[in-house]
Amino acid sequence: MSGPPPAVAAVRSAVRRALSALPSGATALVACSGGADSLALAGAVAFEAPRSGRAAGAVTVDHGLQEGSAARAEAVARVLRGLGLDPVLSRRVEVGADGGPEAAARRARYDALEGAAAAHAPAVVLLGHTLDDQAETVLLGLARGSGARSLAGMAPRTRGYARPLLDLDRATVREACALMGLDPWEDPHNLDPRFARSRVRHDALPALERTLGPGIAAALARTAALLRADADTLDSFADALYAQAAETPDCLPPVPAVPVGPELAVAPLEAAPDALRTRVLRRAALAAGCSASALTARHVRELDRLVVDWRGQAHIDLPGGIRGRRSAGRIRFEAGAP
Amino acid sequence: MSGPPPAVAAVRSAVRRALSALPSGATALVACSGGADSLALAGAVAFEAPRSGRAAGAVTVDHGLQEGSAARAEAVARVLRGLGLDPVLSRRVEVGADGGPEAAARRARYDALEGAAAAHAPAVVLLGHTLDDQAETVLLGLARGSGARSLAGMAPRTRGYARPLLDLDRATVREACALMGLDPWEDPHNLDPRFARSRVRHDALPALERTLGPGIAAALARTAALLRADADTLDSFADALYAQAAETPDCLPPVPAVPVGPELAVAPLEAAPDALRTRVLRRAALAAGCSASALTARHVRELDRLVVDWRGQAHIDLPGGIRGRRSAGRIRFEAGAP
Repeated sequence: MSGPPPAVAAVRSAVRRALSALPSGATALVACSGGADSLALAGAVAFEAPRSGRAAGAVTVDHGLQEGSAARAEAVARVLRGLGLDPVLSRRVEVGADGGPEAAARRARYDALEGAAAAHAPAVVLLGHTLDDQAETVLLGLARGSGARSLAGMAPRTRGYARPLLDLDRATVREACALMGLDPWEDPHNLDPRFARSRVRHDALPALERTLGPGIAAALARTAALLRADADTLDSFADALYAQAAETPDCLPPVPAVPVGPELAVAPLEAAPDALRTRVLRRAALAAGCSASALTARHVRELDRLVVDWRGQAHIDLPGGIRGRRSAGRIRFEAGAP
Repeated sequence: MSGPPPAVAAVRSAVRRALSALPSGATALVACSGGADSLALAGAVAFEAPRSGRAAGAVTVDHGLQEGSAARAEAVARVLRGLGLDPVLSRRVEVGADGGPEAAARRARYDALEGAAAAHAPAVVLLGHTLDDQAETVLLGLARGSGARSLAGMAPRTRGYARPLLDLDRATVREACALMGLDPWEDPHNLDPRFARSRVRHDALPALERTLGPGIAAALARTAALLRADADTLDSFADALYAQAAETPDCLPPVPAVPVGPELAVAPLEAAPDALRTRVLRRAALAAGCSASALTARHVRELDRLVVDWRGQAHIDLPGGIRGRRSAGRIRFEAGAP
């Protein structure tokens, strides 16, 4: 007796593990664009869910960005119904412009997915991201140069989402899609060099493979998993340090400017290792109103000098007109002149 | 009154900071291949050292790998003496084959540098690595996929070494070299695609610049600094966990195989976050005799399952015929059948 081909077996087995890890009673909702990865995921979920005693449906999102997108969403929904998934939801979204076309489409899509999950609660949305998507995400994070969290890629599991295929390479998943007899739709955006992810996929990753060897996508995915664990651990230690530095406020002299955000005692910060101190200072600057995208490592380093290299500096200018300063043994933030 | 051109000023200022951070009485020894980066470093050190009250010399290493290398080393030494550096040492080394040509040459070179520093103790060796070298090192580490430490790049300062130019890009340093009137020698190995670093420099980094933007080298260097701080912090927490898990050995039943390396109590490991537990288990496997190059993240994950997913598993096979197992509430290692 022969089982399914290896690629199909690999996808089904990953899906089986993911389904068994869902909270009991939760519906699995496959987010399916009609592309090969999410279609293979849908096929495997349709196969495995009844065997796991799970309710399983799907959501397809029409971004309305391309000619004929509504008809295509309807065609995808028909295929998903044909697989036996139920409910199958098709959601049309309005994509704004904030933060660029990729970020805006992503935000609209996740809003729609969360809406669908809420309408069928309790539900967990299953996403078709593969190991290659993870590698691309790590490279995109590398360009930000902002440390472990930006290299931690996508989580295999969060509260409302699971990514069952994150350990499988794209070639295996696409092969499984074909072997399941499913006909994928190739989003032309995936080939459009205007999009950073497409450039990473078609230029950066192949160059890294040429120079560093064929295992680079897997190495990037491994890096993501390791750095995610590091970032989680350091964040939880930083939580404790933040609480310690923020408690016991003492008598402060009056200041000319308007205080904003937390005040942190210098003493516990001084005693802490760099990686925790800088995390706490960054978090404090965010709490004081600096925007995450504008707050750089250099700003945090300047703030850090108030703690570890204190020579009576004046205030530090931070994004959003916020100022950081040290006074009376504490790091404080204030709104600068408007 | 006009100062030196900006590139020269940047290199000198970086050197001045590095010299002022050296232990008092230490001689600065520039490691100089004759290439533009280390030659610019030598020029700036020759200029700044007398102004900082520092003794400053140089070492050039003849790897004996290319026709005429001895004559070239002598020519570099003459230039260094002409700059006023003293002592100027020329060291010939034998490059072995272990671990590939790049690793063998690197080992021979660092041995020679350490020998030179020991002969002129107390001395600190100054290395001409730039921000671009750091970016290349991070990419080479990325290919290993072994976490924060392999992405931490080169340290700006260790016990015996300093890298004053690590925050400056190569273009600036090369411009400074030319402006100082120094004539660099271009090592043909830097262009040889047989060497991974050369491929990274001429293929991978340009592809990342094309796809992710021109700031990628700086982003990689920033990543290195942040992950170095993370890795240092996590390593020091892991030290404490290791000590806690290894203390209080208790009565163990006799075992058929030969115990090797440490024994770690499961209880404190179970309570620790992933990033610390896996670091401690990795370290224990190395202490038991596994080679660092053969011990993968997968091995460590299997060992970790003995702690966090214990279902009475048999032993875990580790590199070098070492076995890890759990017995009597402890993780233990033993030499397997030869």
